[in-house]
Amino acid sequence: MNWTDCSIEELTKYRDEAAAELERIKGLGLSLDLTRGKPGRAQLDLSAGMLSVISHTEDCIGESGLDCRNYGVLDGIPEAKRLFSDLLGIPAERIIIGGNSSLNLMFDTMVRCMLFGVAGGHEPWARQGRIKFVCPSPGYDRHFAICRGMGIEMVPVDMTPEGPDMKQVRRLVCTDPSVKGIWCVPKFSNPEGITYSPQIVEEIASLKPAAPDFRIFWDNAYSVHELYDETVPLADIFAAAADFGTEDNIFYFASTSKISFPGSGVAIMAASENNIRHIKPILSTQTIGFDKINQMRHVKYFKNADGIRARMKEHAAILRPKFEMVLKTLENELGGLGIAEWTKPRGGYFISLNTMDDCARRVYKLARSAGVSLTEAGATFPYGCDPRDRNLRIAPSYPELDELATATHALCQCIRHVSAEVLIREKALGSLRE
Amino acid sequence: MNWTDCSIEELTKYRDEAAAELERIKGLGLSLDLTRGKPGRAQLDLSAGMLSVISHTEDCIGESGLDCRNYGVLDGIPEAKRLFSDLLGIPAERIIIGGNSSLNLMFDTMVRCMLFGVAGGHEPWARQGRIKFVCPSPGYDRHFAICRGMGIEMVPVDMTPEGPDMKQVRRLVCTDPSVKGIWCVPKFSNPEGITYSPQIVEEIASLKPAAPDFRIFWDNAYSVHELYDETVPLADIFAAAADFGTEDNIFYFASTSKISFPGSGVAIMAASENNIRHIKPILSTQTIGFDKINQMRHVKYFKNADGIRARMKEHAAILRPKFEMVLKTLENELGGLGIAEWTKPRGGYFISLNTMDDCARRVYKLARSAGVSLTEAGATFPYGCDPRDRNLRIAPSYPELDELATATHALCQCIRHVSAEVLIREKALGSLRE
Repeated sequence: MNWTDCSIEELTKYRDEAAAELERIKGLGLSLDLTRGKPGRAQLDLSAGMLSVISHTEDCIGESGLDCRNYGVLDGIPEAKRLFSDLLGIPAERIIIGGNSSLNLMFDTMVRCMLFGVAGGHEPWARQGRIKFVCPSPGYDRHFAICRGMGIEMVPVDMTPEGPDMKQVRRLVCTDPSVKGIWCVPKFSNPEGITYSPQIVEEIASLKPAAPDFRIFWDNAYSVHELYDETVPLADIFAAAADFGTEDNIFYFASTSKISFPGSGVAIMAASENNIRHIKPILSTQTIGFDKINQMRHVKYFKNADGIRARMKEHAAILRPKFEMVLKTLENELGGLGIAEWTKPRGGYFISLNTMDDCARRVYKLARSAGVSLTEAGATFPYGCDPRDRNLRIAPSYPELDELATATHALCQCIRHVSAEVLIREKALGSLRE
Repeated sequence: MNWTDCSIEELTKYRDEAAAELERIKGLGLSLDLTRGKPGRAQLDLSAGMLSVISHTEDCIGESGLDCRNYGVLDGIPEAKRLFSDLLGIPAERIIIGGNSSLNLMFDTMVRCMLFGVAGGHEPWARQGRIKFVCPSPGYDRHFAICRGMGIEMVPVDMTPEGPDMKQVRRLVCTDPSVKGIWCVPKFSNPEGITYSPQIVEEIASLKPAAPDFRIFWDNAYSVHELYDETVPLADIFAAAADFGTEDNIFYFASTSKISFPGSGVAIMAASENNIRHIKPILSTQTIGFDKINQMRHVKYFKNADGIRARMKEHAAILRPKFEMVLKTLENELGGLGIAEWTKPRGGYFISLNTMDDCARRVYKLARSAGVSLTEAGATFPYGCDPRDRNLRIAPSYPELDELATATHALCQCIRHVSAEVLIREKALGSLRE
């Protein structure tokens, strides 16, 4: 029964029921956290063996005799490049291994664009006056924070179930030379869990940007992060770009943050030979090299891409019940009411939920008052500004199952409460007008 | 016997002897490397125990229950802050723990100045047109590379045995608002091994810069890197700055790169509360946090500042014979000839050698042809340009003792050869003029 069809009396009953339930929940004094895509303890325990895989000096010596303990090797040890090459299907020579954070690599890449310009001798972005980035939205708040911090104007474009709305993207990228880039999370997108269709990947690769120094920030954060057995394929952006001669447009990022340890993983970037040749001399002024022992730790522990894939199935076994618990609760408490819709991702770390328009901020606040922290409403849009104030991001990974059940139930009650109130007011206004 | 007093015949004999010896050395087909301050294998082996100090999940849990494996804690775990606080005498709340490289922290700090400006709401440096950095020279080539890469004009000032020539520094810093900073390696400076006197530290702290957004990059890379038992004291720059109300002027850097593993150490920066408050929100857009397991690894392994100090004595025991071997060879083969002078450092990683004017580049090339790699002549000056072409940096740490002896001997023969040639030409020109 759709709540828009309900009478004011019925809605008032629903609202009061939700209010009473929320009072009860408040009384429990909960402090539950659904804010960030943070793996839970059981997931971290999966990699316990990684802590002892390097325990002797010999473990630090590479296949070519390289001593990982010492200085040197700017762009990563060959063994680690090979591991990521196998996993991601990218030639090893296009890969730069970084520190523990792909966010850091993205920030640094933006810094290089701003202060040094991109390959091809273009003016650094910071000297080109106002520049813009295309931001498919809802999207990843930390991408937006990088742009905001550096004073790069963000232009949101809509997401479709297949990926970014390419008509909007093209209108911006192909006509406006101040549009310098686009953020993409092409697989299990944050927050919606959308994987770009082959058609969209091809359209992105085929973009003919007005700016000669345009770059696609391709954050493949969830490259192997399936929740279910079947693999969700993502078209190869580099292969697509090769067809259009646009390989230099792409900066590719990934990491093991949600494969091994979130705080102590290994991050990579990948790019065309031109781009790598441009990046390395700049990178060499930033560091002598990243932590090679930790690179070797990952190599010795996972051995090869299959080792990582096997680990991802174990992660999925822990995460899947959490996602399913949230989805079941949403369905039970909100299904068919016409007051919320949500994604049912096959991988990644988030469920994206849309309330009715103009309700997300109120739901966020109400949930917080009941002891449930959500990612702040609006955070999934540039400048924290959700034009319809309806998107909420749910991160089910960190809490234990029972906490998650309570938190989701509380969230549903918040949505029921706010929605009922809004509908009551609308109906009251409607009958006044009649 | 000073070679300037020798006859052309005597000099010709010396030159030919050196040439013959260099021919012999070339015949050995050596490949010896004195280029970089890279610890030798025996030094790395000292920290073997660090590889296994974290082997179980429990080892990753901090004193407050913090799980180092997961995301979080932007500025470092409290245990690691305390370790560095004790070691360096800096309050823990002024310390930010970074990744494996203090160079990276310095680069990133420069980036923040360029793109975000410094605390106090000043315009980002990148938007202020031409800006300048004061570079005491000879100095560290990687500092200069950061400035050069970002288009910051470098102004060299002379080094004295007490530190930078403060008259020159003041003339620049206190009159020119486009001078935004100065590089300092205040203890066992690279390459000369000079430790700034208390007077110089105070003068630096008391600087009244013309630029309101001036910053001192205080790279205390060799804070505990004594070669001999007695500690060489360095005045506390923060304490001195507190007297003059200039604490915001200082960005302080250090690392364990030459304490634990060069490639897998822990780097820190320290700054005033104002600066820290300004830096953290920007840093939070760059990363969720650095590698906390590696921070904990250092804490568990060294336990406290005394643990690090004890380790430094073991490093010294390995390094001291290498430095002494180089100094003895220099003295034996070049002493009293008036063709070269060199520093006798009490710590750090380098010996700085000055040839006669206009000889360094030729010595560098000749040495290379004999199989001995030195840091490129000129590298110790901004833009690789040594105005007198005389400075060479010798890094004795990496080769084994016997290799080092051969390499230093070869270097001395190169200096003898080039010097004799130059003196012969000068004398020939002199007699032509008479």
